[in-house]
This record gives sequence, C-alpha cells and structure tokens, in this order.
Amino acid sequence: MGQLGIAGVILTPLKRIQHPKGDVCHAMKKSDPGFTGFGEAYFSTVNPGDIKGWKRHLRMTLNLVVPVGEIRFVMHDGRSESSTSGKFSESILSPSNYHRLTVPPGIWLGFQGLGSGLNLLLNLADIEHEPSESENIPLDTFPFQW
Amino acid sequence: MGQLGIAGVILTPLKRIQHPKGDVCHAMKKSDPGFTGFGEAYFSTVNPGDIKGWKRHLRMTLNLVVPVGEIRFVMHDGRSESSTSGKFSESILSPSNYHRLTVPPGIWLGFQGLGSGLNLLLNLADIEHEPSESENIPLDTFPFQW
Repeated sequence: MGQLGIAGVILTPLKRIQHPKGDVCHAMKKSDPGFTGFGEAYFSTVNPGDIKGWKRHLRMTLNLVVPVGEIRFVMHDGRSESSTSGKFSESILSPSNYHRLTVPPGIWLGFQGLGSGLNLLLNLADIEHEPSESENIPLDTFPFQW
Repeated sequence: MGQLGIAGVILTPLKRIQHPKGDVCHAMKKSDPGFTGFGEAYFSTVNPGDIKGWKRHLRMTLNLVVPVGEIRFVMHDGRSESSTSGKFSESILSPSNYHRLTVPPGIWLGFQGLGSGLNLLLNLADIEHEPSESENIPLDTFPFQW
C-alpha cells in the first residue's frame, strides 16, 4: 500500500491465491485501506487503445481492480485546496500487476486499454451511481501525453 | 428477478450499457434485491470443464456475477427446516445471460467452467472470508449428474 503522488490516492497490493482448478483473486474487504462504504459495484471495459476520460466525481470514492487485460489509469488532482493540486499521476493495473487503486472524490480520471483483448475493471464505489455527482470534460482539456 | 426453485435463491437480471469505447456492466447496488451488507468482494476462476464443490457457508450470503466466460452453478438445499430442503437447482451465467445469482447461507454450491477460455466470477459477499463459517465436502457426496 502506498500513496501515488496525489494526496488520498492509494495503491494496495492484492493477493492472488493459486488453485489447480482456477485461482481466487482478492478485490476488497470492508476492513481494507480505501474502504469508505459500499454503494455499488460495476464493471467497465475499455477497448484496446481507446481512452475514456476525463471524469471526476464530487462525492464518490472509487476502488479499481483489473482482473482481465491491462489498463492505464491517469489521474489529475483537480482539488484547489489539495497539497498535490494540479499534479498528474499514473498507474498501470493488470492481473500481473495486481493492485487496488483507490481514487477519492475531486480527482480527474482517464483510463486507456493497453491489452490487445478484453480490458476489464471492477469499480467498488462507496455510493450508488448518480449522474449529478460527476462531471465529464474532453480529453484534450489537460496537456497530458497519452 | 425470480426465485430459482430453492427458497431464498434469487436470480436478478443485470444491465449491460453499451458504449463505443467499451461497455459498462452492472453488478450490484446496495438498494438491489439480495443485498444484505458488504463484507468482501473477490474473484474466482474455474478452468474449462473443472468443477469446484461442494461448499456451503453457514453465515455468508453470496452474490455471484459472471463478467467473462460461462459458469454453471448447481445448488442443493441443505437446510433441514427449508420448504425446499433437499432440492437441486442450477443456473448458467455468462455475459450473454447476464444475471446476478444470490445464494443464502446453508445452500451447498458447486460450479463448473463451461467456457473454453477464462471463466471468471465475482462474489460480492456480505461478510469477510472466514474459514470457520464454511464447509467443503467431496463432489460425489450428492448424486448429481454433472
């Protein structure tokens, strides 16, 4: 578990338990770092090379796990009062770099499919989906070199 | 949403929201049928043709979703006081038959990988993993024809 250059963003290593009939892979326990309540769990996929972003949530904390494929997550701290305001940070998650990425509210997030097949993320969010608590802006809003 | 031949077992259809860069697929909201609290989320895989089972939990309610591959779930009601005690029931889940299967405590569960590649399930459980609250017995304990 470690901070990832942006205040409140946490990267937590997860266990993969090998089994001859098929592995078991942890995602999140309620006693884990980054858990702030359960509101909704959903999957999102991103096609190879495609980028979804930028989006930020005003109230939702995200907990992101990638059980299939490889996804690059880029974060930009949009909180004016944050000690890391304006900073960028990135993390590439996959089954072979198996971590949980915790993203608090107020962070702009974009993500890109790096794997050549299915790129699948699970988000364990602390509130249910509600369109009014998130914002989307075009990818070219920030000068990030994807 | 419907009962599945065993009291307390619930099958709930889930939404898949198409998106040109990659779909979003629901798993569970805290306001959904079958939600009895959040304890832990984990993935389990089962190799093509392999069967994991039988296992029953004494306290855990399972909420099972299959985002990749195809998995056959077989349940046997092991609760002596249940109105469906002794009954078997099965359900095959996959992205093209996209449902959430809710399994209350006391049900024996086995599952088989039907897809030829990765068969992945997500379990959203209402308590954290605790070895003492589950039991495993050999597959040939019940006369079920897999």
